[in-house]
Amino acid sequence: MATQPTPKATTEIETITPRFCETDALGHINNVSYAAWLEQGRMSYFMAHLDKDRNPFMMVKIEINYRNETFHGTDVEVHTHLARLGNSSLTLSQNIYQSGNHVVESATTLVNYDFTNKCSLPFNDEQRAQLSALMGN
Amino acid sequence: MATQPTPKATTEIETITPRFCETDALGHINNVSYAAWLEQGRMSYFMAHLDKDRNPFMMVKIEINYRNETFHGTDVEVHTHLARLGNSSLTLSQNIYQSGNHVVESATTLVNYDFTNKCSLPFNDEQRAQLSALMGN
Amino acid sequence: MATQPTPKATTEIETITPRFCETDALGHINNVSYAAWLEQGRMSYFMAHLDKDRNPFMMVKIEINYRNETFHGTDVEVHTHLARLGNSSLTLSQNIYQSGNHVVESATTLVNYDFTNKCSLPFNDEQRAQLSALMGN
Amino acid sequence: MATQPTPKATTEIETITPRFCETDALGHINNVSYAAWLEQGRMSYFMAHLDKDRNPFMMVKIEINYRNETFHGTDVEVHTHLARLGNSSLTLSQNIYQSGNHVVESATTLVNYDFTNKCSLPFNDEQRAQLSALMGN
Repeated sequence: MATQPTPKATTEIETITPRFCETDALGHINNVSYAAWLEQGRMSYFMAHLDKDRNPFMMVKIEINYRNETFHGTDVEVHTHLARLGNSSLTLSQNIYQSGNHVVESATTLVNYDFTNKCSLPFNDEQRAQLSALMGN
Repeated sequence: MATQPTPKATTEIETITPRFCETDALGHINNVSYAAWLEQGRMSYFMAHLDKDRNPFMMVKIEINYRNETFHGTDVEVHTHLARLGNSSLTLSQNIYQSGNHVVESATTLVNYDFTNKCSLPFNDEQRAQLSALMGN
Repeated sequence: MATQPTPKATTEIETITPRFCETDALGHINNVSYAAWLEQGRMSYFMAHLDKDRNPFMMVKIEINYRNETFHGTDVEVHTHLARLGNSSLTLSQNIYQSGNHVVESATTLVNYDFTNKCSLPFNDEQRAQLSALMGN
Repeated sequence: MATQPTPKATTEIETITPRFCETDALGHINNVSYAAWLEQGRMSYFMAHLDKDRNPFMMVKIEINYRNETFHGTDVEVHTHLARLGNSSLTLSQNIYQSGNHVVESATTLVNYDFTNKCSLPFNDEQRAQLSALMGN
């Protein structure tokens, strides 16, 4: 599922402060909040490394593996890197850490999408070069 | 603050199922969720009783009194009625109940707003008649 | 990933009203809310069909496939059924529909967990019989 | 309602990154999120300046004035200070800023509460001295 980045891949790290309202009656952070944190990590990755106007992605799939609990009171880090580059889609791999513990692994598949004609679009040469560089190739 | 409706006022009742992710580490529903539930109650009131295209309201203030805790596992009812009609603003009064307990009182002030010219607008005669009828006058 | 239930499997249907605050700046429901809706669907399934005190499950994985957008203003239905029964884990399969459109497929893996000794537990005969019946076997 | 702190009052500033899922279909941050941000501001204030174990507060009221919209893409600052000290309750005043704009004013009333006997408690001399110092008296 989620992978660790290769040494040359570009990794974006987003620090997030868990909110008290994100805890639940079990005393830990509720699983729903991870979806919000992972979205924040992807946003940071896009803003830092991609021209979003030229890369109109549509989210089609997310997988989240819960390895450990997280708690209120300590920041978490969301690490995001590009793990797969297909013909018209890509996969961002994400890992969340709290206090050095690896708590969540996740992978999100996004499609390069033509919102006008409602169909997927193969990456063009310019996009492919930029994305390959982010993968460390 | 929040008021009980007069006998002739129109009250809209929205039933909401608390979500498990809305609990917090104290074991009850977190205070933030009430803001979401009250918005749902206002939406239902507007959709049932007002033509929103003719009534472009802007929210300027909310007050929420927490009278009792609420819990996951039992639906709540959000009761909404029009409590005040001003020159260009109005106040919706809201009360939340769970298992017959009166748990929250709230009042929201909304302004009749001209989003193009960015200024408040006095209610016209048609609006005023409609709103007065909802108050039970 | 998510499956359609076999004819004999027990399916629980939870109706959810999307909240206005669940929309995002793209005009549709934000992807994070599906995680909350799916949790509601699983809660309803558990409360209707399983004795939670005897079944202390820990969530270890979720997959969500986004097939179509959803919008504010129309209720959604979350359909939940048991799709896989392992030695000490199970998979709940979930499908979300809005206005007859199949918008989301999801699968959640839960482990039968001993929270005291922090280890997974094989299902005992009683649990296995109950769960098999829910699968329609 | 919300006040500006006096020169000697202690103000805690919490920086928050708005999340994309906090936008709504109107393109701005939804009003519900302010309740979550204000709670974060209060938590930071408590953790920085008060011994929570000795100060078991219960939230009884919040008022939020919406002065301007906020948007995704720029951090906000939540400024929190103690504005009123009563016999057994206090009021925290909060102001939110984005890009130098004063966007939200809020006031929260908290009661010094005996959760065992379910009644409010007058502040003792030690608490009163500590709280008075935070107000700048």
